[in-house]
Amino acid sequence: MGNVGRKLAVLGLGAVGRSVLELADAYGHDITGVADSTAAAIDSNGLAVADILGRKDRGEPIGDADTEAVLAGEYDTLVEVTPTTLGDAQPGFGHVRAALERDKHVVLANKGPMAERYPEVRALADESDGELRFEATVGATIPVLGTIQDYGPEMITAARGVLNGTANFILTRMTHEGLDYEHVLAEAQDLGVAETDPSFDVEGTDAALKCVILANVLTGGEPGFTLDDAEVEGIVDIPPSALELATEDGRTVRLIGEATREGVRVGPRLIPQNGTLAVTGTQNIVQLSTVHAGELNLSGRGAGGHETATAIYADIARLPE
Amino acid sequence: MGNVGRKLAVLGLGAVGRSVLELADAYGHDITGVADSTAAAIDSNGLAVADILGRKDRGEPIGDADTEAVLAGEYDTLVEVTPTTLGDAQPGFGHVRAALERDKHVVLANKGPMAERYPEVRALADESDGELRFEATVGATIPVLGTIQDYGPEMITAARGVLNGTANFILTRMTHEGLDYEHVLAEAQDLGVAETDPSFDVEGTDAALKCVILANVLTGGEPGFTLDDAEVEGIVDIPPSALELATEDGRTVRLIGEATREGVRVGPRLIPQNGTLAVTGTQNIVQLSTVHAGELNLSGRGAGGHETATAIYADIARLPE
Repeated sequence: MGNVGRKLAVLGLGAVGRSVLELADAYGHDITGVADSTAAAIDSNGLAVADILGRKDRGEPIGDADTEAVLAGEYDTLVEVTPTTLGDAQPGFGHVRAALERDKHVVLANKGPMAERYPEVRALADESDGELRFEATVGATIPVLGTIQDYGPEMITAARGVLNGTANFILTRMTHEGLDYEHVLAEAQDLGVAETDPSFDVEGTDAALKCVILANVLTGGEPGFTLDDAEVEGIVDIPPSALELATEDGRTVRLIGEATREGVRVGPRLIPQNGTLAVTGTQNIVQLSTVHAGELNLSGRGAGGHETATAIYADIARLPE
Repeated sequence: MGNVGRKLAVLGLGAVGRSVLELADAYGHDITGVADSTAAAIDSNGLAVADILGRKDRGEPIGDADTEAVLAGEYDTLVEVTPTTLGDAQPGFGHVRAALERDKHVVLANKGPMAERYPEVRALADESDGELRFEATVGATIPVLGTIQDYGPEMITAARGVLNGTANFILTRMTHEGLDYEHVLAEAQDLGVAETDPSFDVEGTDAALKCVILANVLTGGEPGFTLDDAEVEGIVDIPPSALELATEDGRTVRLIGEATREGVRVGPRLIPQNGTLAVTGTQNIVQLSTVHAGELNLSGRGAGGHETATAIYADIARLPE
């Protein structure tokens, strides 16, 4: 394992897809197909990554093929990094199905299929000669799912932590500066830490999707949790006075997500100020409660193109030869 | 991977060996051979673990076989958990060689062979059909080596952290209670956190061995670091006044080990009081500096029988079928 040069087909060319292309050579893999939302390029001998990204930067079509041609082309691993969608999780789900039905490996950063249609994806993977991995869907570069796999899901009783860097940045700034939500949000948007429409992050949806995936992994997809099953509360309504009160009491507020075999809860929680879970800024942390080895804490950058691509390449290193 | 029932031969029956036996059934594996320092038991259909441990508890020989017979017996994975020895790393090294030469997988918790004779062990593994894994040698249950493998050693520039729970327990107690070293050591010995002869822990040797193994992993065993190459300073000579001064300055002292491609350094270091590395009590932490994904922090219980056995079973889950 680990040193096999792969032929990768990449669907999605946002920040993560770009990073996957940029780092492919460093990891010793070829990109034999790539598609964005409007066009695609294919070369079974390996595409010239710089040319593709140059065309993308200039607003030109990246090639004259389409997504279907990429999926039907020559590759051993599909890297699915189109934007996360809810409900039917399309078009991501269809991409995953098309590749698994062709007995290709599939590595995802797209949370939709694993959060909204886990049992279906699992069944497709079970019938495929291809393997399915999705480390990048939970905490980007933090090795959460690989660790659960190695320990055995049955040896983990719960996973909890801070799983959204934007919400955590806003909460830590509000706490340290005594500023209100709207003010800090505007600042975070200026810095590029929060999106123009921040609702996915600040309402807890993004953290909830990650926790739904964790709950599905812990249960093996039975019953198959979706976002609808999660109890979710965001950070939008927290007044600065609540954060002040917490500080006076030696505590602090974080948006904590928790996944167990029973389900998923996400919401603002009071935690010890210097406790393990009180990461600051855009840091993420996941704490796994184990049956035989206490609590295991994994923290790092939970978002970012190169960070997410790093998790994708870690997954690829684990694929069978 | 992961769900294969294995036949395990276990050499060493201290706290870790016991835990390996106790948890074998939960992980779905059979123990087909086990040896302590005076006797051994073999059964290719799987030994009755409770009987073995009962004999051990009563001070009886655990069987009428010997270590050689276990090594020549029927098993697919050798679990080497005899005590760590320095220099020639015997008898651990000989056990590892005997199993690899028979094309068996080898999983170690014994640090000696990987710290003192890494290139030789690596060469034996390269020539063997068996695989070599040793997650349990660094931070017990903390998934350090598996993460480095997944990321690729070339993508990690340094590993540093708190790698000895005994020294960390003593330092945190000295800091919080203002007590001197001798006093806290006696307390730690009463609690069973420190051994009667604590020199291995408090002089930094144990942390240094772990860092030597990390440096060997980062370099692939070229040049092949040993304990002799490490710059090591322990915690024995730290006066309580130094800890007080650090506290007044918002900092604290920890025994920090660092491994890079250039080598290994272990010693007391001033770090921020609420910083990531300032774990308390017997907690361990390892921070990996990555090329593309910032710093990754992994913390948890760095010692203990069940904790170390958990890492051993995580390694076993990663072995090829």
